[in-house]
Amino acid sequence: MAIELFNNGKHLCLIFDDLVDDSMGEAVQANQFLIVDNEHGALIDPGGNMTYNGLLMEMHNYFAPKNLDYILASHADPDIIASVNKWMIHSECKVMISKLWARFVPHFCSVGNSAGRVEGIPDEGMILPLGNSVIKAIPAHFMHSEGNFQFYDPISKILFSGDMGASIVPHTEVDTPVEDFKSHLQYMEGFHKRYMVSNKICRYWVNMVRGMDVEMIVPQHGRMFKGKKMVNEFLNWIEALPCGIDLMTQDHYREPK
Amino acid sequence: MAIELFNNGKHLCLIFDDLVDDSMGEAVQANQFLIVDNEHGALIDPGGNMTYNGLLMEMHNYFAPKNLDYILASHADPDIIASVNKWMIHSECKVMISKLWARFVPHFCSVGNSAGRVEGIPDEGMILPLGNSVIKAIPAHFMHSEGNFQFYDPISKILFSGDMGASIVPHTEVDTPVEDFKSHLQYMEGFHKRYMVSNKICRYWVNMVRGMDVEMIVPQHGRMFKGKKMVNEFLNWIEALPCGIDLMTQDHYREPK
Repeated sequence: MAIELFNNGKHLCLIFDDLVDDSMGEAVQANQFLIVDNEHGALIDPGGNMTYNGLLMEMHNYFAPKNLDYILASHADPDIIASVNKWMIHSECKVMISKLWARFVPHFCSVGNSAGRVEGIPDEGMILPLGNSVIKAIPAHFMHSEGNFQFYDPISKILFSGDMGASIVPHTEVDTPVEDFKSHLQYMEGFHKRYMVSNKICRYWVNMVRGMDVEMIVPQHGRMFKGKKMVNEFLNWIEALPCGIDLMTQDHYREPK
Repeated sequence: MAIELFNNGKHLCLIFDDLVDDSMGEAVQANQFLIVDNEHGALIDPGGNMTYNGLLMEMHNYFAPKNLDYILASHADPDIIASVNKWMIHSECKVMISKLWARFVPHFCSVGNSAGRVEGIPDEGMILPLGNSVIKAIPAHFMHSEGNFQFYDPISKILFSGDMGASIVPHTEVDTPVEDFKSHLQYMEGFHKRYMVSNKICRYWVNMVRGMDVEMIVPQHGRMFKGKKMVNEFLNWIEALPCGIDLMTQDHYREPK
Protein backbone atom coordinates (compact mmCIF):
# COMPACT_ATOMS: atom_id res chain seq x y z
CA MET A 1 0.00 0.00 0.00
CA ALA A 2 1.22 3.51 -0.74
CA ILE A 3 2.10 5.69 2.24
CA GLU A 4 1.90 9.48 2.06
CA LEU A 5 5.16 11.07 3.12
CA PHE A 6 3.85 14.55 2.33
CA ASN A 7 0.57 16.00 1.06
CA ASN A 8 -0.51 19.66 1.02
CA GLY A 9 -3.28 19.14 -1.53
CA LYS A 10 -1.16 20.30 -4.45
CA HIS A 11 2.08 18.49 -3.84
CA LEU A 12 2.21 14.83 -2.91
CA CYS A 13 5.07 12.45 -2.05
CA LEU A 14 4.34 8.73 -1.84
CA ILE A 15 6.41 5.71 -0.86
CA PHE A 16 5.58 2.16 -1.99
CA ASP A 17 7.39 -0.24 0.32
CA ASP A 18 5.68 -3.61 -0.03
CA LEU A 19 5.82 -4.44 -3.75
CA VAL A 20 8.88 -6.70 -3.68
CA ASP A 21 8.08 -10.30 -2.79
CA ASP A 22 10.85 -10.79 -0.24
CA SER A 23 9.11 -13.63 1.55
CA MET A 24 11.55 -16.28 0.26
CA GLY A 25 14.58 -14.15 1.16
CA GLU A 26 15.75 -14.22 -2.47
CA ALA A 27 15.05 -10.60 -3.47
CA VAL A 28 16.09 -7.56 -1.48
CA GLN A 29 13.24 -5.28 -0.31
CA ALA A 30 13.11 -1.97 -2.19
CA ASN A 31 11.11 1.26 -1.95
CA GLN A 32 9.67 3.12 -4.92
CA PHE A 33 8.57 6.77 -4.86
CA LEU A 34 6.09 9.02 -6.64
CA ILE A 35 6.07 12.81 -6.50
CA VAL A 36 3.04 14.60 -7.95
CA ASP A 37 2.82 18.37 -8.28
CA ASN A 38 -0.13 20.06 -9.95
CA GLU A 39 -0.86 17.02 -12.12
CA HIS A 40 2.72 16.42 -13.14
CA GLY A 41 4.47 13.29 -11.89
CA ALA A 42 7.91 11.82 -11.34
CA LEU A 43 8.69 8.26 -10.33
CA ILE A 44 11.93 7.78 -8.41
CA ASP A 45 13.68 4.39 -8.70
CA PRO A 46 10.60 2.45 -9.92
CA GLY A 47 12.34 -0.90 -9.50
CA GLY A 48 12.52 -4.10 -11.48
CA ASN A 49 10.13 -6.44 -13.24
CA MET A 50 8.93 -7.71 -9.89
CA THR A 51 7.44 -4.36 -8.80
CA TYR A 52 6.14 -3.13 -12.15
CA ASN A 53 2.57 -4.46 -12.07
CA GLY A 54 1.99 -3.56 -8.44
CA LEU A 55 3.35 -0.06 -8.86
CA LEU A 56 1.30 0.58 -11.99
CA MET A 57 -1.91 -0.47 -10.23
CA GLU A 58 -1.22 1.42 -6.99
CA MET A 59 -0.24 4.59 -8.84
CA HIS A 60 -3.61 4.66 -10.59
CA ASN A 61 -5.22 5.64 -7.30
CA TYR A 62 -3.25 8.89 -7.30
CA PHE A 63 -2.03 9.63 -10.81
CA ALA A 64 -2.42 8.39 -14.38
CA PRO A 65 0.86 6.60 -15.17
CA LYS A 66 0.71 7.58 -18.82
CA ASN A 67 1.07 11.24 -17.75
CA LEU A 68 4.43 10.72 -16.06
CA ASP A 69 6.99 13.42 -16.86
CA TYR A 70 10.03 11.59 -15.54
CA ILE A 71 11.56 8.45 -14.26
CA LEU A 72 14.37 9.63 -11.99
CA ALA A 73 16.99 6.92 -11.53
CA SER A 74 19.65 7.18 -8.84
CA HIS A 75 21.79 4.76 -10.86
CA ALA A 76 21.39 1.73 -13.17
CA ASP A 77 21.05 -1.29 -10.85
CA PRO A 78 18.24 -3.81 -11.49
CA ASP A 79 16.30 -2.94 -8.33
CA ILE A 80 16.34 0.69 -9.53
CA ILE A 81 15.16 0.50 -13.13
CA ALA A 82 15.07 -3.03 -14.58
CA SER A 83 11.40 -2.29 -15.40
CA VAL A 84 12.29 0.68 -17.60
CA ASN A 85 11.38 -1.12 -20.85
CA LYS A 86 7.79 -1.46 -19.66
CA TRP A 87 7.54 2.15 -18.48
CA MET A 88 8.84 3.28 -21.87
CA ILE A 89 5.89 1.54 -23.49
CA HIS A 90 3.19 2.61 -21.03
CA SER A 91 4.13 6.28 -20.69
CA GLU A 92 5.74 9.15 -22.55
CA CYS A 93 8.20 9.87 -19.76
CA LYS A 94 11.86 10.74 -20.02
CA VAL A 95 14.43 8.80 -18.01
CA MET A 96 16.91 10.99 -16.14
CA ILE A 97 20.07 9.22 -15.01
CA SER A 98 23.77 10.05 -14.60
CA LYS A 99 25.44 10.68 -17.94
CA LEU A 100 27.73 7.78 -16.96
CA TRP A 101 24.81 5.37 -17.35
CA ALA A 102 22.77 6.93 -20.16
CA ARG A 103 24.29 4.60 -22.78
CA PHE A 104 23.77 1.57 -20.53
CA VAL A 105 20.01 2.05 -20.04
CA PRO A 106 19.15 0.91 -23.61
CA HIS A 107 20.46 -2.55 -22.63
CA PHE A 108 17.34 -2.91 -20.45
CA CYS A 109 15.19 -2.15 -23.47
CA SER A 110 14.06 -3.72 -26.70
CA VAL A 111 15.83 -2.23 -29.72
CA GLY A 112 14.72 1.34 -30.41
CA ASN A 113 12.40 1.53 -27.41
CA SER A 114 14.51 4.04 -25.50
CA ALA A 115 15.58 6.15 -28.48
CA GLY A 116 15.75 9.84 -27.60
CA ARG A 117 14.17 9.34 -24.17
CA VAL A 118 17.18 8.81 -21.88
CA GLU A 119 18.81 12.02 -20.70
CA GLY A 120 22.17 12.12 -18.96
CA ILE A 121 22.40 14.20 -15.78
CA PRO A 122 25.75 16.02 -15.66
CA ASP A 123 28.06 15.31 -12.72
CA GLU A 124 27.21 18.56 -10.95
CA GLY A 125 23.49 17.68 -10.82
CA MET A 126 20.59 19.75 -12.11
CA ILE A 127 17.24 21.32 -11.27
CA LEU A 128 14.25 19.64 -12.92
CA PRO A 129 10.91 21.47 -13.26
CA LEU A 130 7.89 19.44 -12.09
CA GLY A 131 4.47 21.16 -12.25
CA ASN A 132 4.86 24.36 -10.22
CA SER A 133 7.78 22.95 -8.27
CA VAL A 134 11.26 21.57 -8.91
CA ILE A 135 13.21 18.44 -8.03
CA LYS A 136 16.94 18.74 -7.51
CA ALA A 137 19.32 16.00 -8.66
CA ILE A 138 21.99 15.97 -5.92
CA PRO A 139 25.48 14.56 -6.66
CA ALA A 140 26.12 11.34 -4.73
CA HIS A 141 28.76 9.68 -6.91
CA PHE A 142 30.40 6.52 -5.53
CA MET A 143 27.57 6.06 -3.00
CA HIS A 144 27.49 3.46 -4.24
CA SER A 145 27.48 3.85 -8.01
CA GLU A 146 30.23 5.77 -9.85
CA GLY A 147 27.60 8.04 -11.39
CA ASN A 148 24.91 8.45 -8.76
CA PHE A 149 22.24 10.99 -7.85
CA GLN A 150 19.87 11.53 -4.99
CA PHE A 151 16.69 13.55 -5.47
CA TYR A 152 15.74 16.46 -3.21
CA ASP A 153 12.25 17.90 -3.04
CA PRO A 154 12.43 21.48 -1.66
CA ILE A 155 8.69 21.54 -0.81
CA SER A 156 8.55 18.44 1.41
CA LYS A 157 12.25 18.83 2.32
CA ILE A 158 12.71 15.12 1.68
CA LEU A 159 16.03 13.82 0.41
CA PHE A 160 15.40 10.59 -1.52
CA SER A 161 18.82 9.21 -0.80
CA GLY A 162 19.04 6.03 -2.89
CA ASP A 163 21.37 3.52 -1.24
CA MET A 164 22.63 6.00 1.33
CA GLY A 165 20.90 5.18 4.61
CA ALA A 166 19.56 1.90 3.26
CA SER A 167 18.72 -0.86 5.71
CA ILE A 168 18.09 -4.50 4.96
CA VAL A 169 14.80 -5.36 6.66
CA PRO A 170 11.63 -7.25 5.62
CA HIS A 171 9.00 -5.08 3.90
CA THR A 172 6.68 -5.41 6.88
CA GLU A 173 9.09 -3.30 8.97
CA VAL A 174 9.59 -0.40 6.58
CA ASP A 175 6.46 1.63 7.44
CA THR A 176 7.83 3.06 10.68
CA PRO A 177 10.63 5.64 10.64
CA VAL A 178 13.77 4.78 12.59
CA GLU A 179 13.11 5.42 16.28
CA ASP A 180 16.23 4.15 18.03
CA PHE A 181 19.30 4.87 15.92
CA LYS A 182 21.64 2.57 17.82
CA SER A 183 19.40 -0.46 17.58
CA HIS A 184 18.87 0.25 13.86
CA LEU A 185 22.62 0.12 13.13
CA GLN A 186 22.66 -3.68 12.81
CA TYR A 187 20.47 -3.41 9.67
CA MET A 188 22.67 -0.77 8.01
CA GLU A 189 26.25 -1.37 9.01
CA GLY A 190 27.21 -4.34 6.83
CA PHE A 191 25.63 -2.78 3.76
CA HIS A 192 27.29 0.63 4.14
CA LYS A 193 30.70 -0.84 4.99
CA ARG A 194 30.83 -2.69 1.69
CA TYR A 195 28.66 -0.84 -0.84
CA MET A 196 29.72 2.73 0.06
CA VAL A 197 33.02 3.22 -1.73
CA SER A 198 35.09 5.15 0.82
CA ASN A 199 34.90 7.33 3.89
CA LYS A 200 36.45 10.27 2.01
CA ILE A 201 33.44 10.38 -0.30
CA CYS A 202 30.94 9.98 2.55
CA ARG A 203 32.49 13.01 4.25
CA TYR A 204 32.07 15.17 1.13
CA TRP A 205 28.45 14.10 0.98
CA VAL A 206 27.84 14.86 4.68
CA ASN A 207 29.37 18.34 4.29
CA MET A 208 26.97 19.04 1.42
CA VAL A 209 23.87 17.70 3.18
CA ARG A 210 24.59 19.67 6.37
CA GLY A 211 24.19 22.82 4.24
CA MET A 212 20.76 21.74 2.96
CA ASP A 213 17.36 21.99 4.66
CA VAL A 214 16.57 18.27 5.02
CA GLU A 215 13.61 17.13 7.17
CA MET A 216 13.67 13.50 6.06
CA ILE A 217 16.20 11.11 4.55
CA VAL A 218 14.28 8.38 2.72
CA PRO A 219 16.45 5.57 1.31
CA GLN A 220 15.57 3.09 -1.42
CA HIS A 221 15.81 0.10 0.94
CA GLY A 222 14.40 -0.09 4.45
CA ARG A 223 13.37 2.55 6.97
CA MET A 224 13.47 6.34 6.76
CA PHE A 225 15.07 8.96 9.03
CA LYS A 226 12.48 11.57 10.02
CA GLY A 227 13.18 14.92 11.67
CA LYS A 228 16.38 16.95 11.95
CA LYS A 229 17.59 15.09 15.03
CA MET A 230 17.46 11.67 13.38
CA VAL A 231 18.89 13.07 10.12
CA ASN A 232 21.86 14.36 12.12
CA GLU A 233 22.36 11.06 13.88
CA PHE A 234 22.69 9.41 10.50
CA LEU A 235 25.09 12.08 9.18
CA ASN A 236 27.30 11.80 12.26
CA TRP A 237 27.49 8.03 11.89
CA ILE A 238 28.27 7.79 8.19
CA GLU A 239 30.81 10.64 8.41
CA ALA A 240 32.96 8.47 10.68
CA LEU A 241 32.49 5.07 9.01
CA PRO A 242 35.45 3.40 7.25
CA CYS A 243 33.99 1.61 4.24
CA GLY A 244 34.53 0.16 0.78
CA ILE A 245 38.12 0.38 -0.39
CA ASP A 246 39.23 1.65 3.03
CA LEU A 247 38.79 -1.94 4.21
CA MET A 248 40.32 -3.75 1.23
CA THR A 249 43.85 -5.21 1.31
CA GLN A 250 45.97 -7.32 -1.05
CA ASP A 251 44.47 -10.37 0.69
CA HIS A 252 41.17 -9.64 -1.07
CA TYR A 253 42.88 -9.99 -4.46
CA ARG A 254 44.30 -13.50 -4.80
CA GLU A 255 43.82 -16.12 -7.51
CA PRO A 256 41.76 -19.01 -6.05
CA LYS A 257 43.87 -22.21 -5.97
CA MET B 1 29.43 -13.06 -36.10
CA ALA B 2 31.17 -15.15 -33.46
CA ILE B 3 34.97 -15.10 -33.41
CA GLU B 4 37.00 -18.03 -32.07
CA LEU B 5 39.45 -16.88 -29.42
CA PHE B 6 40.60 -20.47 -28.78
CA ASN B 7 39.71 -23.89 -30.16
CA ASN B 8 41.57 -27.17 -29.62
CA GLY B 9 38.68 -29.37 -30.73
CA LYS B 10 37.52 -30.07 -27.18
CA HIS B 11 37.66 -26.64 -25.63
CA LEU B 12 36.28 -23.56 -27.35
CA CYS B 13 36.18 -19.86 -26.43
CA LEU B 14 34.03 -17.51 -28.51
CA ILE B 15 33.49 -13.77 -28.49
CA PHE B 16 30.37 -12.12 -29.91
CA ASP B 17 31.17 -8.47 -30.54
CA ASP B 18 28.56 -7.16 -32.97
CA LEU B 19 25.19 -7.86 -31.32
CA VAL B 20 24.59 -4.42 -29.80
CA ASP B 21 23.01 -1.96 -32.21
CA ASP B 22 25.33 0.97 -31.48
CA SER B 23 24.68 2.68 -34.80
CA MET B 24 22.70 5.54 -33.23
CA GLY B 25 25.30 6.10 -30.52
CA GLU B 26 22.68 5.46 -27.83
CA ALA B 27 23.85 2.07 -26.53
CA VAL B 28 27.40 1.22 -25.57
CA GLN B 29 29.02 -1.65 -27.54
CA ALA B 30 29.45 -4.83 -25.47
CA ASN B 31 31.08 -8.24 -25.95
CA GLN B 32 29.51 -11.53 -24.90
CA PHE B 33 31.44 -14.78 -24.43
CA LEU B 34 30.82 -18.50 -24.63
CA ILE B 35 33.12 -21.21 -23.30
CA VAL B 36 32.37 -24.80 -24.30
CA ASP B 37 34.26 -27.78 -22.89
CA ASN B 38 33.29 -31.35 -23.76
CA GLU B 39 29.66 -30.39 -24.38
CA HIS B 40 29.28 -28.25 -21.30
CA GLY B 41 28.85 -24.51 -21.71
CA ALA B 42 29.17 -21.24 -19.84
CA LEU B 43 28.06 -17.82 -21.07
CA ILE B 44 30.00 -14.88 -19.66
CA ASP B 45 28.18 -11.53 -19.41
CA PRO B 46 25.43 -12.38 -21.94
CA GLY B 47 24.18 -8.79 -22.04
CA GLY B 48 20.79 -7.11 -22.12
CA ASN B 49 17.56 -7.47 -23.99
CA MET B 50 19.16 -6.00 -27.08
CA THR B 51 21.64 -8.87 -27.52
CA TYR B 52 19.44 -11.78 -26.43
CA ASN B 53 17.96 -12.85 -29.76
CA GLY B 54 21.20 -12.49 -31.69
CA LEU B 55 23.21 -14.38 -29.09
CA LEU B 56 20.68 -17.20 -28.91
CA MET B 57 20.74 -17.64 -32.69
CA GLU B 58 24.53 -17.40 -33.05
CA MET B 59 25.13 -19.81 -30.19
CA HIS B 60 23.06 -22.47 -31.92
CA ASN B 61 25.89 -22.88 -34.45
CA TYR B 62 28.18 -24.09 -31.68
CA PHE B 63 26.15 -25.24 -28.71
CA ALA B 64 22.53 -25.90 -27.71
CA PRO B 65 21.59 -22.99 -25.42
CA LYS B 66 19.25 -25.15 -23.34
CA ASN B 67 22.29 -27.21 -22.24
CA LEU B 68 24.06 -24.24 -20.63
CA ASP B 69 25.57 -25.00 -17.23
CA TYR B 70 26.20 -21.41 -16.18
CA ILE B 71 25.72 -17.77 -16.80
CA LEU B 72 28.79 -16.14 -15.27
CA ALA B 73 28.15 -12.49 -14.47
CA SER B 74 30.98 -10.13 -13.62
CA HIS B 75 28.47 -7.89 -11.85
CA ALA B 76 24.81 -6.80 -12.15
CA ASP B 77 24.80 -3.95 -14.70
CA PRO B 78 22.20 -4.00 -17.51
CA ASP B 79 24.78 -4.57 -20.29
CA ILE B 80 25.96 -7.62 -18.30
CA ILE B 81 22.76 -9.51 -17.50
CA ALA B 82 19.55 -7.57 -18.17
CA SER B 83 18.54 -10.53 -20.38
CA VAL B 84 18.74 -12.99 -17.47
CA ASN B 85 14.96 -13.42 -17.25
CA LYS B 86 14.90 -14.83 -20.79
CA TRP B 87 17.87 -17.14 -20.21
CA MET B 88 16.15 -18.46 -17.09
CA ILE B 89 13.22 -19.53 -19.25
CA HIS B 90 15.19 -20.96 -22.18
CA SER B 91 17.79 -22.95 -20.24
CA GLU B 92 18.35 -24.76 -16.98
CA CYS B 93 21.50 -22.81 -16.18
CA LYS B 94 22.61 -21.40 -12.86
CA VAL B 95 23.60 -17.77 -12.57
CA MET B 96 26.88 -17.21 -10.73
CA ILE B 97 27.43 -13.65 -9.46
CA SER B 98 29.05 -11.96 -6.47
CA LYS B 99 27.15 -12.68 -3.27
CA LEU B 100 26.75 -8.90 -3.04
CA TRP B 101 24.38 -8.99 -6.03
CA ALA B 102 22.65 -12.38 -5.66
CA ARG B 103 19.59 -10.78 -4.04
CA PHE B 104 19.46 -8.05 -6.70
CA VAL B 105 19.33 -10.40 -9.72
CA PRO B 106 15.68 -11.42 -9.04
CA HIS B 107 14.71 -7.79 -9.80
CA PHE B 108 15.53 -8.52 -13.46
CA CYS B 109 13.12 -11.45 -13.36
CA SER B 110 9.45 -12.18 -13.22
CA VAL B 111 8.32 -13.36 -9.78
CA GLY B 112 9.62 -16.84 -8.98
CA ASN B 113 11.57 -17.21 -12.21
CA SER B 114 14.98 -17.08 -10.56
CA ALA B 115 14.09 -19.10 -7.45
CA GLY B 116 16.98 -21.34 -6.38
CA ARG B 117 19.03 -20.60 -9.50
CA VAL B 118 21.17 -17.62 -8.48
CA GLU B 119 24.32 -18.55 -6.59
CA GLY B 120 26.48 -16.00 -4.78
CA ILE B 121 30.24 -16.20 -5.39
CA PRO B 122 32.12 -15.52 -2.14
CA ASP B 123 34.52 -12.56 -2.06
CA GLU B 124 37.61 -14.74 -2.40
CA GLY B 125 36.36 -16.22 -5.71
CA MET B 126 35.94 -19.89 -6.54
CA ILE B 127 36.78 -22.66 -9.01
CA LEU B 128 33.87 -23.80 -11.16
CA PRO B 129 33.93 -27.18 -12.94
CA LEU B 130 33.01 -27.05 -16.64
CA GLY B 131 33.13 -30.32 -18.59
CA ASN B 132 36.66 -31.66 -18.09
CA SER B 133 38.02 -28.20 -17.30
CA VAL B 134 37.47 -25.43 -14.77
CA ILE B 135 36.77 -21.70 -14.86
CA LYS B 136 38.16 -19.56 -12.07
CA ALA B 137 36.19 -16.62 -10.66
CA ILE B 138 38.91 -14.03 -9.94
CA PRO B 139 38.26 -11.26 -7.37
CA ALA B 140 38.04 -7.83 -9.02
CA HIS B 141 35.96 -5.92 -6.49
CA PHE B 142 35.55 -2.15 -7.06
CA MET B 143 36.64 -2.53 -10.72
CA HIS B 144 34.15 -1.15 -11.13
CA SER B 145 31.43 -2.86 -9.14
CA GLU B 146 31.69 -3.33 -5.35
CA GLY B 147 31.22 -7.07 -5.80
CA ASN B 148 32.94 -7.96 -9.07
CA PHE B 149 34.55 -11.00 -10.66
CA GLN B 150 36.59 -11.70 -13.74
CA PHE B 151 36.70 -15.19 -15.22
CA TYR B 152 39.95 -17.00 -16.01
CA ASP B 153 40.16 -20.01 -18.28
CA PRO B 154 43.36 -21.98 -17.48
CA ILE B 155 43.24 -23.87 -20.81
CA SER B 156 43.15 -20.88 -23.17
CA LYS B 157 44.90 -18.66 -20.58
CA ILE B 158 42.33 -15.96 -21.30
CA LEU B 159 41.31 -13.56 -18.55
CA PHE B 160 37.79 -12.33 -19.30
CA SER B 161 38.28 -9.06 -17.49
CA GLY B 162 34.84 -7.42 -17.48
CA ASP B 163 35.19 -3.64 -17.40
CA MET B 164 38.91 -3.74 -16.75
CA GLY B 165 40.63 -2.92 -20.05
CA ALA B 166 37.37 -1.83 -21.66
CA SER B 167 37.52 0.59 -24.57
CA ILE B 168 34.67 2.57 -26.05
CA VAL B 169 34.77 1.93 -29.79
CA PRO B 170 32.16 1.06 -32.47
CA HIS B 171 31.51 -2.69 -32.85
CA THR B 172 33.14 -2.67 -36.29
CA GLU B 173 36.53 -2.03 -34.64
CA VAL B 174 36.45 -4.73 -31.98
CA ASP B 175 37.63 -7.68 -34.10
CA THR B 176 41.31 -6.70 -34.10
CA PRO B 177 43.39 -6.97 -30.92
CA VAL B 178 45.10 -3.77 -29.74
CA GLU B 179 48.22 -3.23 -31.85
CA ASP B 180 49.52 0.15 -30.75
CA PHE B 181 48.97 0.62 -27.02
CA LYS B 182 49.62 4.37 -26.98
CA SER B 183 47.19 5.17 -29.76
CA HIS B 184 44.57 2.94 -28.07
CA LEU B 185 44.75 4.94 -24.82
CA GLN B 186 42.29 7.57 -26.05
CA TYR B 187 39.51 4.93 -26.10
CA MET B 188 40.22 3.69 -22.57
CA GLU B 189 41.44 6.58 -20.50
CA GLY B 190 38.20 8.46 -19.77
CA PHE B 191 36.36 5.26 -18.89
CA HIS B 192 39.01 3.91 -16.51
CA LYS B 193 39.57 7.26 -14.81
CA ARG B 194 35.93 7.44 -13.77
CA TYR B 195 34.56 3.89 -13.51
CA MET B 196 37.57 2.27 -11.79
CA VAL B 197 37.17 3.16 -8.15
CA SER B 198 40.74 3.94 -7.06
CA ASN B 199 44.37 3.39 -7.91
CA LYS B 200 44.95 1.48 -4.67
CA ILE B 201 42.56 -1.22 -5.85
CA CYS B 202 44.00 -1.33 -9.37
CA ARG B 203 47.45 -1.97 -7.87
CA TYR B 204 46.16 -4.94 -5.83
CA TRP B 205 44.63 -6.33 -9.02
CA VAL B 206 47.84 -5.86 -11.03
CA ASN B 207 49.88 -7.61 -8.33
CA MET B 208 47.54 -10.59 -8.53
CA VAL B 209 47.45 -10.77 -12.34
CA ARG B 210 51.25 -10.59 -12.61
CA GLY B 211 51.33 -13.88 -10.69
CA MET B 212 48.95 -15.57 -13.14
CA ASP B 213 49.69 -17.11 -16.56
CA VAL B 214 47.64 -14.74 -18.76
CA GLU B 215 47.99 -14.83 -22.56
CA MET B 216 45.03 -12.59 -23.31
CA ILE B 217 43.01 -9.96 -21.49
CA VAL B 218 39.57 -9.78 -23.11
CA PRO B 219 37.31 -7.02 -21.76
CA GLN B 220 33.53 -6.76 -22.02
CA HIS B 221 33.70 -3.59 -24.13
CA GLY B 222 36.02 -2.94 -27.04
CA ARG B 223 39.29 -4.51 -28.11
CA MET B 224 41.36 -7.28 -26.51
CA PHE B 225 45.01 -7.40 -25.39
CA LYS B 226 46.76 -10.41 -26.94
CA GLY B 227 50.15 -11.81 -25.97
CA LYS B 228 52.25 -11.29 -22.83
CA LYS B 229 53.86 -8.08 -24.11
CA MET B 230 50.54 -6.32 -24.67
CA VAL B 231 49.10 -7.72 -21.42
CA ASN B 232 52.08 -6.19 -19.59
CA GLU B 233 51.64 -2.84 -21.31
CA PHE B 234 48.11 -2.73 -19.98
CA LEU B 235 49.15 -3.77 -16.45
CA ASN B 236 51.88 -1.12 -16.35
CA TRP B 237 49.45 1.57 -17.43
CA ILE B 238 46.57 0.79 -15.07
CA GLU B 239 48.96 0.31 -12.13
CA ALA B 240 49.93 3.97 -12.38
CA LEU B 241 46.55 5.54 -13.19
CA PRO B 242 44.86 7.80 -10.62
CA CYS B 243 41.13 7.12 -10.95
CA GLY B 244 37.68 7.19 -9.35
CA ILE B 245 37.68 8.69 -5.88
CA ASP B 246 41.35 9.69 -6.22
CA LEU B 247 40.08 12.48 -8.50
CA MET B 248 37.03 13.55 -6.49
CA THR B 249 37.01 16.69 -4.33
CA GLN B 250 34.41 18.57 -2.27
CA ASP B 251 33.65 20.55 -5.45
CA HIS B 252 31.99 17.45 -6.90
CA TYR B 253 29.52 17.42 -4.01
CA ARG B 254 27.51 20.65 -4.03
CA GLU B 255 23.75 21.26 -4.05
CA PRO B 256 22.78 22.67 -7.47
CA LYS B 257 21.43 26.25 -7.06
